[in-house]
Amino acid sequence: MAYIKLPEGLPGIRGLLAFRPETAGPLGTLADALLHAPGTLSLGERELIAAYVSLLNDCVYCQASHAAIAACHFEDESLVDSVMKDAVSAPVSAKMKTLLAVAARVQQSGRNVRPEHISQAKEAGATDTEIHDTVLIAAAFCMFNRYVDGLATSTPTDPEGYRERAGFVATHGYSAVTRSAK
Amino acid sequence: MAYIKLPEGLPGIRGLLAFRPETAGPLGTLADALLHAPGTLSLGERELIAAYVSLLNDCVYCQASHAAIAACHFEDESLVDSVMKDAVSAPVSAKMKTLLAVAARVQQSGRNVRPEHISQAKEAGATDTEIHDTVLIAAAFCMFNRYVDGLATSTPTDPEGYRERAGFVATHGYSAVTRSAK
Repeated sequence: MAYIKLPEGLPGIRGLLAFRPETAGPLGTLADALLHAPGTLSLGERELIAAYVSLLNDCVYCQASHAAIAACHFEDESLVDSVMKDAVSAPVSAKMKTLLAVAARVQQSGRNVRPEHISQAKEAGATDTEIHDTVLIAAAFCMFNRYVDGLATSTPTDPEGYRERAGFVATHGYSAVTRSAK
Repeated sequence: MAYIKLPEGLPGIRGLLAFRPETAGPLGTLADALLHAPGTLSLGERELIAAYVSLLNDCVYCQASHAAIAACHFEDESLVDSVMKDAVSAPVSAKMKTLLAVAARVQQSGRNVRPEHISQAKEAGATDTEIHDTVLIAAAFCMFNRYVDGLATSTPTDPEGYRERAGFVATHGYSAVTRSAK
């Protein structure tokens, strides 16, 4: 049971968004800017970073949600599963591997990102904007994960629910979800 | 030197906000909702949570910035200093001590917030909304701190610069700062 009284029937972050619309609005807009706006990292790649950081933070709800959204964008669940199992050997681009490595450092602490992690990403072809966005997505999921788990929200166990919702988010983005969360 | 090419002369998060206006907007709106909007936790108390989490994350820029803003709201630098030195013995309310303890748990991991930390806050008079906001402010600074340090932005050492900027933020809020960051 969640630590505060939330509207019933809304798992994970959804109950929190409905509880506090004043912060739900900016959080939805931020998620859209990071994960749904046009950019040179694909929507699938950005969701993969979100799911991977959530896995490292042991946030089951966010990991399952964003893995399902990434799978929607890639139209490939097994690719996402392979990154969740082992990001180093997964069949993603060399650039993506270096960005996942940067994200893993951000998850530990901003101070753990060292010049060599950034150089490796740049050598693999990552632009400054892609590095910026990777760091900010990873940092944002250190927020979202703590928000969801720090208030002990509920975590559904049926993968079908995550798949269904992922289809909606992948198509309509996050602010639309926030508005429909009530 | 920062890991990516940022506009010159803008330390800490300010260079990042100017570099990427697409994410600066939502980040400013979120900061205002958390730290500058009306609420039952005072603006000083909320800034104190922000500064305390930044201290725990060893993010010197954010810690100095938000400690200065908290001091502006409280009109008392020594109160803020005492919380930064030892939150347990600092002369803040019993409720505030329990909320700082919740924030410290969130800083470690969302999963480290245990029922007893929440019970203690409720027994000290914290409402569900105050607990929610404390968790989200602490979580948000786990984002902001990683953003600022993960890209190796610059950290001024002169306290006067932080004081000066704090006066502007305490009066006008964060979106105004974001707009003036360029």
